[in-house]
Amino acid sequence: MIKQIPGGVCAPKGYTAGGIYCGIRKRNDKNDLAMIFSEVPAHAAAVYTTNLVKGAPLTVTKNHIADGVAQAVICNSGNANTCNSNGLEIAEQMSALAAEQLGISSNDVIIASTGVIGQKLNIAPVANHITELAASLSQEGEDEAAKAIMTTDLVMKKIAVEFEIDGKICRLGGIAKGSGMIHPNMATMLVFLTTDTAISAPMLQKALSHDVQKTFNMLSVDGDTSTNDMVSIMANGLAGNKEITEEGPAFDIFMKALNTVTISLCRTIAGDGEGATKLLECDVTGAADEKTASVVAKSVITSSLIKAAMFGADANWGRVLCAIGYSGADLNVNKVDVAFKSAKGIIPVCKNGAGVDFSEEIAKKILLEKEITILVELNSGSASATAWGCDLTYDYVKINGDYRS
Amino acid sequence: MIKQIPGGVCAPKGYTAGGIYCGIRKRNDKNDLAMIFSEVPAHAAAVYTTNLVKGAPLTVTKNHIADGVAQAVICNSGNANTCNSNGLEIAEQMSALAAEQLGISSNDVIIASTGVIGQKLNIAPVANHITELAASLSQEGEDEAAKAIMTTDLVMKKIAVEFEIDGKICRLGGIAKGSGMIHPNMATMLVFLTTDTAISAPMLQKALSHDVQKTFNMLSVDGDTSTNDMVSIMANGLAGNKEITEEGPAFDIFMKALNTVTISLCRTIAGDGEGATKLLECDVTGAADEKTASVVAKSVITSSLIKAAMFGADANWGRVLCAIGYSGADLNVNKVDVAFKSAKGIIPVCKNGAGVDFSEEIAKKILLEKEITILVELNSGSASATAWGCDLTYDYVKINGDYRS
Repeated sequence: MIKQIPGGVCAPKGYTAGGIYCGIRKRNDKNDLAMIFSEVPAHAAAVYTTNLVKGAPLTVTKNHIADGVAQAVICNSGNANTCNSNGLEIAEQMSALAAEQLGISSNDVIIASTGVIGQKLNIAPVANHITELAASLSQEGEDEAAKAIMTTDLVMKKIAVEFEIDGKICRLGGIAKGSGMIHPNMATMLVFLTTDTAISAPMLQKALSHDVQKTFNMLSVDGDTSTNDMVSIMANGLAGNKEITEEGPAFDIFMKALNTVTISLCRTIAGDGEGATKLLECDVTGAADEKTASVVAKSVITSSLIKAAMFGADANWGRVLCAIGYSGADLNVNKVDVAFKSAKGIIPVCKNGAGVDFSEEIAKKILLEKEITILVELNSGSASATAWGCDLTYDYVKINGDYRS
Repeated sequence: MIKQIPGGVCAPKGYTAGGIYCGIRKRNDKNDLAMIFSEVPAHAAAVYTTNLVKGAPLTVTKNHIADGVAQAVICNSGNANTCNSNGLEIAEQMSALAAEQLGISSNDVIIASTGVIGQKLNIAPVANHITELAASLSQEGEDEAAKAIMTTDLVMKKIAVEFEIDGKICRLGGIAKGSGMIHPNMATMLVFLTTDTAISAPMLQKALSHDVQKTFNMLSVDGDTSTNDMVSIMANGLAGNKEITEEGPAFDIFMKALNTVTISLCRTIAGDGEGATKLLECDVTGAADEKTASVVAKSVITSSLIKAAMFGADANWGRVLCAIGYSGADLNVNKVDVAFKSAKGIIPVCKNGAGVDFSEEIAKKILLEKEITILVELNSGSASATAWGCDLTYDYVKINGDYRS
């Protein structure tokens, strides 16, 4: 059984975290530098953006964890350290500064940056405050770390769960930064996960790579795929279970725990999308195969017109059918049923590809809720998929009309 | 030489047009029914949306012009006659009503509808006003027709050009409805073209199919592909030139005239995109091949983040590089140069994939203009492509938050 518990990356044994304002961001109203530390070396895995333009920190992280081991994370907000002339150099310097403070190898540091693309990152603020950052590490420091990786996020994103493997209590926690430039065509946004489960590096990578296909890869805020997206996970083995080295019941429990954490983070990221007032979920069922279900769910959740209609609580289901039609999936549109669901109820709006009479009043009541599910039944098989997103609002435009200032 | 002249679909010889309010739209502040008529049967061609969900009028039009001949267009706004149970029936009834009034075969009618998807279209308003519509036909009626096909468009879209083939004066004109649900993955939006050039039906189809690849297929307002998009053209031969039946100099002139009209309509549609305050153009040069150039140009013009930045006159070129990176095109991002251009000047912002110092003040001045060109040089070949779009604004959200009311 997977049980949610308080906390985030410090919930599992042996982890501390911290966050400070060092001066990378212009305004000092929010932290801009985060650190997570495992008291012992941990197995590590990560997935990265599929954007051809890749942030320098991703390249450095990839090299550092090629041996399957990491012991710390350092991450700044305010500057993505991407598309500039000295990104790799700066990312290596940041890693070295962190490693020196922590008494570990620079090669065991996971490094990430988020913020404006294309400006040089000045290492001075980091160098001047690295001792302060290391000193901030504590079991209570995870909120400060979670705040430090936020950009336009309004809500701090963390979660932790507890589960049992071999009679040992294991924990898995995470923090995330979401908000904008989020699209399902690739890896994902910034997410740092920690666990005390003992699991081999290859199985950890396998679990993560498999999980993101159905979680972070099914999440869209604005259809833009970031250059700096990454999900990393460290597993330090301090729970004391027999190390998971192959598929089987223990791996299944671990996968389920991981999935509980990542789905929760997905929903939080979507609901806190830039300018969002609503969390949208699209559940596609009855698909001929998983690929079809996934393509349809992502097409619906990505449509600007559907997102704007949901902002206006307008049951404009024609746009849903339209998005299914242009998704590229091979399906029979004359078999498609559509319904809207929320805490206030469920209302069918389309049957066999054509409109059905429905009460606009009830539809409005349902769509005025904060969490809306768009149900799409393809009536062509038994595969299903879920995608998450948010509505498109005035504030999305406002936030992105002048992001750099 | 292609010369722009006043007028639209009635500029070529032998065409009349008209538009009225018949009651399909709730509010009578705008026409909702349009007609275009050629005094003699014309060769006809069309391209259609690639959306699997296709409006009933498209299916009917496809059947009607399968023989390469048409003589009239009827088009309503306010209801797309799509995703309902009796769409085909209603579309055939509308065609028959038009044909009866005009004394032509129902099989020679091009029919189109635009508006809300998924509601039944009541034929009564059309039946009750079809005589009035036919009576409204005149050479001066093209503006009333152009207004009748508008939905959320703010600007009436028409243009005409004059050119010479075989020493005969030929003309080609068009009207368009644009505004929302426009994306380059497919055919296009509603465009009705007329010409008095004599050209065979197969060559007319060839010209149109080829032209849209570089014009309407390179246009994006919101990334949504409509169910009802169509571009049709009628060519009645009254200019008296020798009928164009194969490629050659005459066909080249015709193609150029067609392209002049369609590019002008593309720019007008993009600049009048829902809520738009700016026309955006992305010119990609130096690509290894046309496909790469086209994919990159469309990715840039479609990015919500770039569109929002342009609304805010923010020279956030990192988002341009980002959109190039996730376009799916195979290219070397370290060779990419980016510049912004408008009537106020040109400013390079990125060289070899990295930022260059630039004056924010000058950039702002350039980006505050109404027409912005984003220049992308890939430095990898000699192929090029252009795409058109618009900025993303508060008003886009407003317009689409409650479209059906």
